[in-house]
Amino acid sequence: MNISLEQAEKAIVAAKAKSIELGVKMNISIVDGGANLVAFARMDGAWLGSLDISLKKAKTARFFDMNTGIIGTLSQPGGSLYNIEHSNGGLITFPGGVPIKNAAGEIIGAIGVSGDSVENDHTVAEAGALAI
Amino acid sequence: MNISLEQAEKAIVAAKAKSIELGVKMNISIVDGGANLVAFARMDGAWLGSLDISLKKAKTARFFDMNTGIIGTLSQPGGSLYNIEHSNGGLITFPGGVPIKNAAGEIIGAIGVSGDSVENDHTVAEAGALAI
Amino acid sequence: MNISLEQAEKAIVAAKAKSIELGVKMNISIVDGGANLVAFARMDGAWLGSLDISLKKAKTARFFDMNTGIIGTLSQPGGSLYNIEHSNGGLITFPGGVPIKNAAGEIIGAIGVSGDSVENDHTVAEAGALAI
Amino acid sequence: MNISLEQAEKAIVAAKAKSIELGVKMNISIVDGGANLVAFARMDGAWLGSLDISLKKAKTARFFDMNTGIIGTLSQPGGSLYNIEHSNGGLITFPGGVPIKNAAGEIIGAIGVSGDSVENDHTVAEAGALAI
Repeated sequence: MNISLEQAEKAIVAAKAKSIELGVKMNISIVDGGANLVAFARMDGAWLGSLDISLKKAKTARFFDMNTGIIGTLSQPGGSLYNIEHSNGGLITFPGGVPIKNAAGEIIGAIGVSGDSVENDHTVAEAGALAI
Repeated sequence: MNISLEQAEKAIVAAKAKSIELGVKMNISIVDGGANLVAFARMDGAWLGSLDISLKKAKTARFFDMNTGIIGTLSQPGGSLYNIEHSNGGLITFPGGVPIKNAAGEIIGAIGVSGDSVENDHTVAEAGALAI
Repeated sequence: MNISLEQAEKAIVAAKAKSIELGVKMNISIVDGGANLVAFARMDGAWLGSLDISLKKAKTARFFDMNTGIIGTLSQPGGSLYNIEHSNGGLITFPGGVPIKNAAGEIIGAIGVSGDSVENDHTVAEAGALAI
Repeated sequence: MNISLEQAEKAIVAAKAKSIELGVKMNISIVDGGANLVAFARMDGAWLGSLDISLKKAKTARFFDMNTGIIGTLSQPGGSLYNIEHSNGGLITFPGGVPIKNAAGEIIGAIGVSGDSVENDHTVAEAGALAI
């Protein structure tokens, strides 16, 4: 099962709505089950450097089928996954990447959001993921 | 002058409509004046390898402010720009990349389309560019 | 709004003057609003490895519209942006990158300086940014 | 012997003057004897994609101590250096890269120019190289 473009665009609409509600400007990436980009939107005035971060968050969430922030707790100095960020052409392991599931609970892709605090990034990503 | 997300999404809607009309499945990338991604959509079932090609076409069109196919006529063996494709992390110089202009005729970004014949790629890109 | 070459060269002149005053040898990069290089100077005898660092500092400052050192305080082990340096082809998050604003306060580019202590790097970058 | 920043800036001034005389907008890169960037200028409105090309031309000219166009005649299909462009992270082998010599005739660096026809690129590069 793979996310469709229609579903990905629905997630982006929800993420943009949540961003406007929070008064933040986000980069929003949606990847499919193969961790390949399906849809992307950069809101006007959003940080340019968050483009790549939103994509890497989405990929990281799908690479390991978990929220990116969880990986970040394990990749610290002394942690079991120390510096895992060096793999896969660069991971981002702080919050803002969330797997996307279908009604049956199967993972069909992931969303990555970047542009504000990691708390807001995560809140917007979750709003996008829950729209499906 | 830079393309807005609203304009970029309008271009994607038009490009998707033209793709459906032609019965083809496309990857569609929109970049801004700085050649950075603003919006992207991969239609269901579109070639995975065309994802990167659509992005490189959009960047190439903005890098040189002309349709990508024009560069491809100059980069052939014996041509004045032979192997220019090795620059900028990889250019794509066959048709499917088109600059996007505002009402005043200023270039504000570019669209890159990939997923079918280069003729269809170009037709869809032009439909997207003309929507703005 | 984008920095002009004339403005960028003015920033480099000011940065070089400050470097001579401090008795240091610097690499100085100026990028525009799209984070693309506009002007660069490497002072005679400056560290060769600082060439890329000055460019990455300038890009990082524009990517997130803030001084690079601020990001570095957040990207430490345990910090909210831990290992953000893995994004965007490599960030530099210690001091020496500063956004450049026009008279209206709009960000039009950034300067990145590398070649001595991070304190001196930052001092020189600020001298360049304030010249505009 | 290595080009100094003062000499590199003199070459850029001459290259800009020639560009204005020709009515063209150029990206101009100067590298030293180690093929590392010393100075760079992108004229307002110059093609963004020519940034990397000007740098690769300068590096290519110094890598082989000859005008880039000469290499391009040998890198064609069937030629003795076919597809040499794949080396060194990407070469550019059409005209516009020229070695820079000191008064004693020793090569101390190179200039790479990109932004218009390869003939104009070469003319501007030569004007820059002869300024030293």
